[in-house]
Amino acid sequence: MKIVLLSGGSGKRLWPLSNGIRSKQFLKVVQGGDGRVESMLQRVYRQMQAAGVGDGITVATGAAQVESIRGQLGERVSVVVEPERRNTFPAIALSAAYLYFEKGCPPGETVVVLPVDPYVGEEYFKMLHKLDSAVQADVADIVLMGVAPTYPSEKYGYIIPDLSGKMGKFANPVDAMNADARDVDSSLPVSSLAGIRKEGGQDLVGSGILPVLKFREKPDVCAAQELIAQGGLWNCGVFAFKLSYLMGIVQKTVPCACYADVQRQYTGFEGTSFDYAVVEKADGVAVLPYHGEWKDLGTWNTLTEVMEEKPIGDVMVSDQCRNTHVINELGIPIVVMGANDMIVVASPDGILVSDKEQSSYIKRYVEDRDMRPMFEERSWGEYRVLDMAGGEDGMKSLTKRKKIREGERIAYQVHQNRSEVWTVLSGKCIITINDRAHEAFAGDTYSVPAGVKHGLFAVTDTEVLEVQVGKELIKDGTELIPGGE
Amino acid sequence: MKIVLLSGGSGKRLWPLSNGIRSKQFLKVVQGGDGRVESMLQRVYRQMQAAGVGDGITVATGAAQVESIRGQLGERVSVVVEPERRNTFPAIALSAAYLYFEKGCPPGETVVVLPVDPYVGEEYFKMLHKLDSAVQADVADIVLMGVAPTYPSEKYGYIIPDLSGKMGKFANPVDAMNADARDVDSSLPVSSLAGIRKEGGQDLVGSGILPVLKFREKPDVCAAQELIAQGGLWNCGVFAFKLSYLMGIVQKTVPCACYADVQRQYTGFEGTSFDYAVVEKADGVAVLPYHGEWKDLGTWNTLTEVMEEKPIGDVMVSDQCRNTHVINELGIPIVVMGANDMIVVASPDGILVSDKEQSSYIKRYVEDRDMRPMFEERSWGEYRVLDMAGGEDGMKSLTKRKKIREGERIAYQVHQNRSEVWTVLSGKCIITINDRAHEAFAGDTYSVPAGVKHGLFAVTDTEVLEVQVGKELIKDGTELIPGGE
Repeated sequence: MKIVLLSGGSGKRLWPLSNGIRSKQFLKVVQGGDGRVESMLQRVYRQMQAAGVGDGITVATGAAQVESIRGQLGERVSVVVEPERRNTFPAIALSAAYLYFEKGCPPGETVVVLPVDPYVGEEYFKMLHKLDSAVQADVADIVLMGVAPTYPSEKYGYIIPDLSGKMGKFANPVDAMNADARDVDSSLPVSSLAGIRKEGGQDLVGSGILPVLKFREKPDVCAAQELIAQGGLWNCGVFAFKLSYLMGIVQKTVPCACYADVQRQYTGFEGTSFDYAVVEKADGVAVLPYHGEWKDLGTWNTLTEVMEEKPIGDVMVSDQCRNTHVINELGIPIVVMGANDMIVVASPDGILVSDKEQSSYIKRYVEDRDMRPMFEERSWGEYRVLDMAGGEDGMKSLTKRKKIREGERIAYQVHQNRSEVWTVLSGKCIITINDRAHEAFAGDTYSVPAGVKHGLFAVTDTEVLEVQVGKELIKDGTELIPGGE
Repeated sequence: MKIVLLSGGSGKRLWPLSNGIRSKQFLKVVQGGDGRVESMLQRVYRQMQAAGVGDGITVATGAAQVESIRGQLGERVSVVVEPERRNTFPAIALSAAYLYFEKGCPPGETVVVLPVDPYVGEEYFKMLHKLDSAVQADVADIVLMGVAPTYPSEKYGYIIPDLSGKMGKFANPVDAMNADARDVDSSLPVSSLAGIRKEGGQDLVGSGILPVLKFREKPDVCAAQELIAQGGLWNCGVFAFKLSYLMGIVQKTVPCACYADVQRQYTGFEGTSFDYAVVEKADGVAVLPYHGEWKDLGTWNTLTEVMEEKPIGDVMVSDQCRNTHVINELGIPIVVMGANDMIVVASPDGILVSDKEQSSYIKRYVEDRDMRPMFEERSWGEYRVLDMAGGEDGMKSLTKRKKIREGERIAYQVHQNRSEVWTVLSGKCIITINDRAHEAFAGDTYSVPAGVKHGLFAVTDTEVLEVQVGKELIKDGTELIPGGE
């Protein structure tokens, strides 16, 4: 079994922590197993290890997220970089091609595709073994996971299983619920099963797997109630299939003999969802109901439900606050007094002060602001923008503090349109200027006029203040100099 | 008549806008006459000009506030710098000596002392002419202004006038209120006079001036109600006297023949209040009741009452907010959603998110944090701290962006214990390093190791990024080099 994690999302709804580069899956705000906070990506990775499905993970993502993924998971996962962001169908097709051509996976291998950001219990990942068995037993071309609804949501797509076949083990829905609870995880509260009332139907491999009758996109509340009464399940974006099945579709869409062929023809895949392009057109689709914890932490309101109330960062909260979460990533203190049911978040990108329920409307306030990210994790470390300024003389400046981890380097490069000044704040590093290497310590400064080659290697953990000055800082004519350092 | 404005206050209660240097009187948050925001100091100065009492103003303050005062009022006022912060008695004694010895004021001149930060109507300043007349008519050694109470406050001292003499024009309190309203300012609402019910008594010079019977420090609510029934007035810290009267006290306390004598013996004055040291011991004290608008804007709750609800700075406020004030001095946006009756303030010193009523308890949360100010107005311009960091190698760094106004200079100086790097971000300046002058433009960098003399003169408005690096940034061994530039 190979796992493909889809890592996407622009993350506007969790502003100001998330931005075009730091999507919600990278935010270190979730309580980890050992009491420390971790990101959704780190949590999912940790849970997959614990569930025994952590080998052979491939993350499919856009170029902007690669450094964040490497920063959080290192080299422990493979990364498939989409040539451009299109949709889930092209991303999954590319990942299949990667596994087939680059990793040499056999055609009969099970591939399970998962979104990277559900907040779930470990039993969710244990279910993947059942998906694998179902795929290997050829119960259907595609086997989905379906989440037992907890309320008639209008936000999700519904999978309606076919309950018209021979009834399964249980004629009585109450027996079915109870037995099913024992089947999946005896520690689950019965309430989490309340949504699925007509479990049963044709049990394909004795694991609760059901044939799928039809799909229904985001219904209204009344229709959702009706769907739930019919045994409908939420589509949580988990797909399992044999590699050969998807490679057939890939090769029908773009002729290819190697991975590069598929990369090159990436726009040949329709920019649509995997549900639409593949699942809804497949001959045989089955679904495995999942009755455990499953949360979509897309808004501050839902995310704070799984956070401890203890504030993060330099924060003082008065005794008069109730149900208020505070996250501070800035170097200055936050004092919160007499706030109830609120979320306060400060990051280098901005500050949010919101009633929790209102926070789900944030998108409209921030989506028109196309700000540059003020904080980024990079493969060599991280940086924060301290200041941006523009003078009356048309000169712009950008000041960053960069932390470069011991043994990492900032690539040897040259900027044609701007100058740069590096001042070492702490640590020890080698700064190379026009092919000459200098050992540098705290307090040392190197001025790099436009057109001058420069690079940095961190001998120990190093902090550098970088001041960029020029008339044009974005189109700065940067060239990387290969092997020059 | 000479005016002495007392400018003090550490300003913790308006954190994070106020700090040890930027006291509340310097905060530019009050709606000005022309629609622009102005500081309390600028408002008071503007109102005094309008009331015809704006000539000959002296501001008494500590060294820390001198640059802020010069930055906001320029050279239009005299500044008396207290050798150390003691209390109002030494500060007023020093100011009297300054007026007498340095300004050559005649002994018969009226001196009126005012706090710098009351939020009042213009009629308050017009009253100063009446104080002047009363002092010149020798009605008493000291003439105070007393504010007609609007509620039985426990926060203020009370002045109780002597109403035992011949009753004034009015026997009926209601008539007195109405007639008095016409007397002072016919546009005033009657409600603002509700506190003073037994106006009348001995009218000393036909301007409502009354002899003072006694004083009472911060009473409880019941006692305050009783005092108000007796015609008690709030002591608002306005004192008028003849210069000769106070110089008598000065010369009795410290023998002096010039201003420097008084400065040198500043600790000879008891560090106590003028009320305690002078007023309560004077033979004759009179009070002039003031019935107009008077507010003590000491907390966010009271300050926001006189601010427009329009947010200040880069702020987006959702339609779901009610009675919420937002001030943003940072370079990043603030989004506020669904907040009611709140104050949100972000400055380089920190971020406050508070229910308005709760905000009066802020002192306890910030007084133990002895942070360095992150923003300062200086005589040459202003600076903001962008970053402070300390590495594992014991090196500290401090990054500032400085704005130097055209024609101003950063003094020629040397630091023994830290290095500095200046990068010009915009403008044109002359940077002098070890007695050699360099013309510098945006993008130019000068590295200043410890022990190297350096100074800067701004040819045009100039912005400079300064990075300080050293093991000790506070005790940095700075020496100013006189006339070296």
